[in-house]
Amino acid sequence: MPTLLLDKDKCLMNIEKMARKATSNQLSFRPHFKTHQSAEIGSWFREFGVSKITVSSFRMARYFADAGWKDILVAFPFNPHRLQELNELSINTKTSILLDNPDTLAFLGGLAHQVDFYIDIDPGYGRTGIHSGDREGIELLLAASGKNPRLNFKGFYCHAGKSYKAIANSEKEQIHLHATGELQKLKEAFAVYNPMNLYGDTPNCSTQDDFTGIDEITPGNFVFYDLTQVLLGSCCPKQVAVAMACTVTGRYPDRKQLLVHGGGVHFSKESVMLGDNVVYGQVVRQNEKRWSCPGVNTFLTGLSQEHGLLENAGELFERTRIGDQLLIIPVHSCMTANLMREFRTLEGNVIPTMNS
Amino acid sequence: MPTLLLDKDKCLMNIEKMARKATSNQLSFRPHFKTHQSAEIGSWFREFGVSKITVSSFRMARYFADAGWKDILVAFPFNPHRLQELNELSINTKTSILLDNPDTLAFLGGLAHQVDFYIDIDPGYGRTGIHSGDREGIELLLAASGKNPRLNFKGFYCHAGKSYKAIANSEKEQIHLHATGELQKLKEAFAVYNPMNLYGDTPNCSTQDDFTGIDEITPGNFVFYDLTQVLLGSCCPKQVAVAMACTVTGRYPDRKQLLVHGGGVHFSKESVMLGDNVVYGQVVRQNEKRWSCPGVNTFLTGLSQEHGLLENAGELFERTRIGDQLLIIPVHSCMTANLMREFRTLEGNVIPTMNS
Repeated sequence: MPTLLLDKDKCLMNIEKMARKATSNQLSFRPHFKTHQSAEIGSWFREFGVSKITVSSFRMARYFADAGWKDILVAFPFNPHRLQELNELSINTKTSILLDNPDTLAFLGGLAHQVDFYIDIDPGYGRTGIHSGDREGIELLLAASGKNPRLNFKGFYCHAGKSYKAIANSEKEQIHLHATGELQKLKEAFAVYNPMNLYGDTPNCSTQDDFTGIDEITPGNFVFYDLTQVLLGSCCPKQVAVAMACTVTGRYPDRKQLLVHGGGVHFSKESVMLGDNVVYGQVVRQNEKRWSCPGVNTFLTGLSQEHGLLENAGELFERTRIGDQLLIIPVHSCMTANLMREFRTLEGNVIPTMNS
Repeated sequence: MPTLLLDKDKCLMNIEKMARKATSNQLSFRPHFKTHQSAEIGSWFREFGVSKITVSSFRMARYFADAGWKDILVAFPFNPHRLQELNELSINTKTSILLDNPDTLAFLGGLAHQVDFYIDIDPGYGRTGIHSGDREGIELLLAASGKNPRLNFKGFYCHAGKSYKAIANSEKEQIHLHATGELQKLKEAFAVYNPMNLYGDTPNCSTQDDFTGIDEITPGNFVFYDLTQVLLGSCCPKQVAVAMACTVTGRYPDRKQLLVHGGGVHFSKESVMLGDNVVYGQVVRQNEKRWSCPGVNTFLTGLSQEHGLLENAGELFERTRIGDQLLIIPVHSCMTANLMREFRTLEGNVIPTMNS
């Protein structure tokens, strides 16, 4: 099996940097824990003053509630069939949900406890949420939710996921300023409710500096970062805190190709385009126990269920032998961590996750 | 959580059909169990006379050996660091491995038991294996392996994975005839060893009828099939035996878009192109307990970690409400089953896998 290595020092620095950024911008910090899905890694956040978290499913909420977290936002438009889980969770945990459709309220009649909700706002990303300009839609939802005495409107939540498509810095800034501007307008328009504005994907929270209109940030991926974030400019290569250790099991001189044991069931099939190539990871150079990146201009370009191919591996091909271990930065650390189900620190400690 | 539904009747019919095809072509049948990774589903093969299997890792080999399988091929170029697992497995299990590089032999000096090996042959796919025309390479490997008295050469193994890229039937047939022709030539050239020829991906085994030169087939995906196989013409839509049941949690009239709870951590990020669209699954029509496909011309076109989007859902959008359940055929059933880690039959029985 390939191993998912975790550089704890880099991880702690990533957490500290984002926590400081929140503090210096007078922002509350509610990190998204879907990236690591690990109670132990979650516990590292406590020393940076984190006491509330974001998750993406009720299963994950239950896992972190059992690990002692007392304030959890389930950042997914509420699934009508999860009322029982919500009721159980909110006995001992301050649980918040997202809403973006009045029809969902019909499933919340049986709420057993007080529950905070945020209205999911779409700043033009087109995934979920009420469009930020749709005041009528927001008012309809507020009026309908007001009939449920256990539902408390707390504010707006916005994932400006377009930041993942932006290449130029000016474009990123434009996406960020548009989304935060829309949230600021909502804050003013619905001032009677004194709404909180929750915001934050990793690219915007990592690269932007003006958080006017925002009260709380909810990024997740920054805890590890990955090749996608390097390419987006969210982090320096050396900040990437996870790498897959894979054994070379094949070597094909005619096409300068290496085979590693490490496929789609380990990395995930998440990819990025680099020029004309579909890329699933980048080889980095081992540096005693650590790695430095960018180290090697060689990419994981082929991936089947268990097979990983480094095609046209160039100079790396020449100095690599069957049985060698290569370190490969994944394209999307959230997906890779979800598949690998545990981490191994550079000191050799195994860190479990909710899927272990 | 979304649920991975399994129609056992369809699954049994798929197994029976492939077993009959093997029999009628005088082929031995060694199905690949990486698709289902389940001891219980594996046991269904026994009534069709299956007694030997293919797997893709030593972890999977151990799981199926513990489930009583006595003849297991680990169809991945041998990982030099798995000698201990190989030695343990081959105490009670007839274990076969793949080799494609003499350098790997240096790691097999400590073999504790007799082990069969097949030479991995590349018919021009470019993933693993010695090129089928490289007689010198094959002879070198045979000569070197002959020095290890516990390694027994049994024959050639070939995955003609180019079949997954072929659209036209004539192209598929050409790929198949080329690969089987190359294997036939190897059989003749190395007749002194009386080699077995192992072959078989699901598209070729499902669609082709001439298996001259082949002794044993090793397809895996046919047990469930999926959207990719439908599009390749490997199966009729009604043969697809798995579907994801996902709850609708969002409905966006301005773009006729539905949101389901079902993302990359459930479906995997494996995709196919349909026209200009990246597609992760197809909605099918529920038909009492079963499903019929193709039912609905609506596709899963957006996928983040937990979110699935049906964009431009057309007529389906109009008749779907928050809280409804949709059935979605995955693009690649192997990857989806690996992530979901259990199946639920239409009768409501939960079937575990090695990852449960």
